[in-house]
Amino acid sequence: MRIKPLADRVVIKKLEAEEKTKSGIVLPGSAKEQPQMAEVVEVGPGGIVDGKEIKMEVKVGDKVIFSKYAGTEVKIEGQEYTILRQSDILAVVE
Amino acid sequence: MRIKPLADRVVIKKLEAEEKTKSGIVLPGSAKEQPQMAEVVEVGPGGIVDGKEIKMEVKVGDKVIFSKYAGTEVKIEGQEYTILRQSDILAVVE
Amino acid sequence: MRIKPLADRVVIKKLEAEEKTKSGIVLPGSAKEQPQMAEVVEVGPGGIVDGKEIKMEVKVGDKVIFSKYAGTEVKIEGQEYTILRQSDILAVVE
Amino acid sequence: MRIKPLADRVVIKKLEAEEKTKSGIVLPGSAKEQPQMAEVVEVGPGGIVDGKEIKMEVKVGDKVIFSKYAGTEVKIEGQEYTILRQSDILAVVE
Amino acid sequence: MRIKPLADRVVIKKLEAEEKTKSGIVLPGSAKEQPQMAEVVEVGPGGIVDGKEIKMEVKVGDKVIFSKYAGTEVKIEGQEYTILRQSDILAVVE
Amino acid sequence: MRIKPLADRVVIKKLEAEEKTKSGIVLPGSAKEQPQMAEVVEVGPGGIVDGKEIKMEVKVGDKVIFSKYAGTEVKIEGQEYTILRQSDILAVVE
Amino acid sequence: MRIKPLADRVVIKKLEAEEKTKSGIVLPGSAKEQPQMAEVVEVGPGGIVDGKEIKMEVKVGDKVIFSKYAGTEVKIEGQEYTILRQSDILAVVE
Repeated sequence: MRIKPLADRVVIKKLEAEEKTKSGIVLPGSAKEQPQMAEVVEVGPGGIVDGKEIKMEVKVGDKVIFSKYAGTEVKIEGQEYTILRQSDILAVVE
Repeated sequence: MRIKPLADRVVIKKLEAEEKTKSGIVLPGSAKEQPQMAEVVEVGPGGIVDGKEIKMEVKVGDKVIFSKYAGTEVKIEGQEYTILRQSDILAVVE
Repeated sequence: MRIKPLADRVVIKKLEAEEKTKSGIVLPGSAKEQPQMAEVVEVGPGGIVDGKEIKMEVKVGDKVIFSKYAGTEVKIEGQEYTILRQSDILAVVE
Repeated sequence: MRIKPLADRVVIKKLEAEEKTKSGIVLPGSAKEQPQMAEVVEVGPGGIVDGKEIKMEVKVGDKVIFSKYAGTEVKIEGQEYTILRQSDILAVVE
Repeated sequence: MRIKPLADRVVIKKLEAEEKTKSGIVLPGSAKEQPQMAEVVEVGPGGIVDGKEIKMEVKVGDKVIFSKYAGTEVKIEGQEYTILRQSDILAVVE
Repeated sequence: MRIKPLADRVVIKKLEAEEKTKSGIVLPGSAKEQPQMAEVVEVGPGGIVDGKEIKMEVKVGDKVIFSKYAGTEVKIEGQEYTILRQSDILAVVE
Repeated sequence: MRIKPLADRVVIKKLEAEEKTKSGIVLPGSAKEQPQMAEVVEVGPGGIVDGKEIKMEVKVGDKVIFSKYAGTEVKIEGQEYTILRQSDILAVVE
């Protein structure tokens, strides 16, 4: 079973606190309850979105930092995902 | 009797909780009262909408995840439907 | 006496509850007080509206579902009408 | 003395209740205090307005229905007028 | 000493009540405290403003009606002026 | 040490009340606490800003009137400056 | 470990009060609690962002003044960073 995002949307899986600690990233203050780091699990096709050409820059497996409150949460087979627009992804962490 | 959506609109039928459980998808928390998964039952023609070319990407029968609160509800012959813009559909589930 | 809508506007006459029951359409909950189904009685010429080319897709006699709260109500010779933009019409019912 | 509206603006004179009754038009409910029917008394030149070509469709003498609260009121030689954009005129009544 | 407005801005001097009475124009109700009639004293060069070509239509000496609350007030050598965009001028009075 | 504004931004230094009195300009009412007259001390390069070509019209040394509350204040070596967009400058005073 | 900002985003590290004092810059009033001066540590690739070509003008090592409240804070290996759009950077200080 797969979620295939439309247009410029991306499906991400939030990284658990432990995973983040391992990689050395900690999000400050109130953000602790709302982790903003995630792994990309599906990437939409991009193309013309709202009249503008969007090229997808992120790829499956990327670790990303995303805008707080962005996107929509959905639970599939016990795992929570967030579906958001690529423009709500701020940076890739390497 | 048929609802033919205009422009980039799509008619969807929300999936019942049981159907979703079968397919393994459960929506979290308060979303339980507002299921966000649905089946596409009618697709508008697309074309120039608000000055922009819109190509319809979803098709009748697709299982989709859509934006909470998006669209307008209507009841026809005892069945509730939601009419929304394709841009309010986040992803297709396969 | 005729109302000739300008630009991309359409004049509609809301359908009475009885008419809707006959056709099998019932609108849910609070919408009952605000019927959202109507018949198109006049159609504007379309053309360039706010810098964008609008082609009129609905025609006189169409039964349509429209956005709640959209448009302006006016009473002519005892009959209430609503004047709205074509973009506030969600679907045609056949 | 004349008010010459700029750009896509139109000067209208609201029709009195009696005139409206004669022509058979009555506006519903709270709109009674704010008549929405008027006669066009001056029409701006149209042209490029906010980067878009506007063609004036109404003409002096037209009876029009306009958006509630649209425009600016001004009193000249004892007569009240409203100056509004043509896009705030919904329909011409014939 | 001169105020030279930039872009599509215009400098106006509000007309006093007496001057307005002479010319037969009286503004209604609460507008009395905020006269909306003025004389143009300086006109900006127009040109490309916010990506759109603006042609200046008003000229020094024009009597104009302007949008309530539009613009910024400034006092120079004891005289109050208002600096506003040409698009906040509704009409020229002749 | 220099502040070099980006894009269509301008750095201004507010003029003191005394300077304004000398030049004969006094700002009315509550504006006294927020002087709106300033001298331009740095001018950004202009160019394409938010997809639109911006040509800088003000130059260092210009006395300008600017929009109340526009821009961001910064203190450098004991002197306060305001950084704002050229479009928040209303007029040049000569 | 590196944060690679997407599109027109920039990663900045706020400068400590001491560093600012050394360089002679002090931010006024309530801004003291929210330093607005920072050093650029990563610069996105620019390119087409929201349909518009963005050229990156800042570079790593630039000292910049940025819009209060702009951007998103993230902590990596004990250091706080802010990720913001280049358009939220007001000026470069030299």
